Parts: sequence; structure tokens; C-alpha cells
Amino acid sequence: MPNCIFCKIAAGEVPAMKLYESGDFVAFLDISPSNKGHALIVPKQHYVSFTELPDKLGKEFGELVLSLSKAVEKATAADGFNLLLNNGTAAGQEVMHAHMHIMPRYENDDFHFKWTHKKYIEGEMQDYAKKIKQHL
Amino acid sequence: MPNCIFCKIAAGEVPAMKLYESGDFVAFLDISPSNKGHALIVPKQHYVSFTELPDKLGKEFGELVLSLSKAVEKATAADGFNLLLNNGTAAGQEVMHAHMHIMPRYENDDFHFKWTHKKYIEGEMQDYAKKIKQHL
Repeated sequence: MPNCIFCKIAAGEVPAMKLYESGDFVAFLDISPSNKGHALIVPKQHYVSFTELPDKLGKEFGELVLSLSKAVEKATAADGFNLLLNNGTAAGQEVMHAHMHIMPRYENDDFHFKWTHKKYIEGEMQDYAKKIKQHL
Repeated sequence: MPNCIFCKIAAGEVPAMKLYESGDFVAFLDISPSNKGHALIVPKQHYVSFTELPDKLGKEFGELVLSLSKAVEKATAADGFNLLLNNGTAAGQEVMHAHMHIMPRYENDDFHFKWTHKKYIEGEMQDYAKKIKQHL
């Protein structure tokens, strides 16, 4: 996709500090990290939404999320980390090419993840579960 | 693990609105959702940290994250969603049994995900990449 920074990194047209590369994925350091060691996992093909990824890419995605989480944890010796994928502008997606963040965390750093909790009314939870299972 | 709510759900000792179940994973609706349809993916075995998961579980984890994201998106017709895994108390982990959130999102809902951006000094980004790759 022209003018997509992650497509350009995947194609080697823009330099990046790469951590992993295969035919389908590339992982590299975020140039403007939330904390140092902040890594991104990106499919090479231009999918705006994570849910556009073909099912067959799920396995490698999962293996890579797990192995890179372990590597970032060991390399940074951080107190913890977040995995975060923002899907859609309503969810905070800024680069419109699907990507998963691995973000090292430290005690009392400057992250703020907040939301309120909602309540299901009678029978509503069952309805949601039924609908989700119909699409699985 | 005694007194672990997710172990009890995995064992069927505490009821939950289950969405998926295999030998190694269970997915169910969060009883106190950030938005309705908020789902959790949990390994059945008690791993406090996501990075304790054996590498062999990465594939199924990835397939499940992808397929359940697609199903939640279709079932809720939300404007977007976040995948979020908080690893360690420093990262906001509250239930000390590894779990991934799939959280439907709506325009102008009451989520706040904020952090500041840090800067690498000269040569530091290379050092981080090198260390991470050594552990991959």
C-alpha cells in the first residue's frame, strides 16, 4: 500500500531495527517507544484490520507473540509487559496496518489503562455468548 | 492452583459463559465487561505469566486469538476492539493467571490508554535489538 510506513518497512524500503522476519511477518523496535525495547509484530501484507488476516497465519502469529514476549522480557529485565493491539480508530489504531505491541513495563511508569465496567442485564450474557459462538 | 478463579473456571468448578474449550485453553465472557462481549482467553494450566507458556502452545493461542477476534467483531458489530494482555502487576495484571482480553470498542467510549514516548540515545536502539535477538 503506497504511503504505508509498515508496508515500506516490510519491503525493506524504510530502515527499521528488525528483530524477526519471515515470509509473512516482520517484527521490529518501535522508533518512538513507550519504554525502551517496545516491539511491534506486523504482517507483511497490508491488512488494515487484524481480522483480515487469513486463518492460516494465526499459528505463526501466536508462536511469534509468545517467543518475542519471552525475548523482550529477558532482554529488558522489565517488571512486566503489555501486549496490545488496537483494532480500528475507535480502539486507538493510528497506523492503519495491523500491528501488535509488546511494551515493557516498570513499576510506577506513566501508563494509564483505564475503563469502567458494564453490567449485563438478565439473559444478555447468554445472548452474547450464543452470537459469538455462532461465528467461531 | 487453589483459590485461582481461572483455574476453577477451567476445571468447571465455577460456572462461566464459555465460548471455546480445548485441552489447553478455555475462552469465556468476562463477567464484569469493559464493553459487552468482552472475552478472555486463558490457558487451562496455571501459568502466572504468559511467558511461562510452553512454546508448543503458541500456535493454538494464535489461532484462537485470531478466530475469537473475528467472532467477537461479527457478533458485537462494535466499532473496533483491543487485544490486551497485562503481564505482571507492574503492567496491571489483576488475576494472577495469564489471560488475554478481547475488548469490543465504540467511538467515544470511556477507555483511556495513554503513555508517553521515550527516546533512544545514540546506539541504544541497536543494543536493545541485539539483546532481544539473542533471546529469540
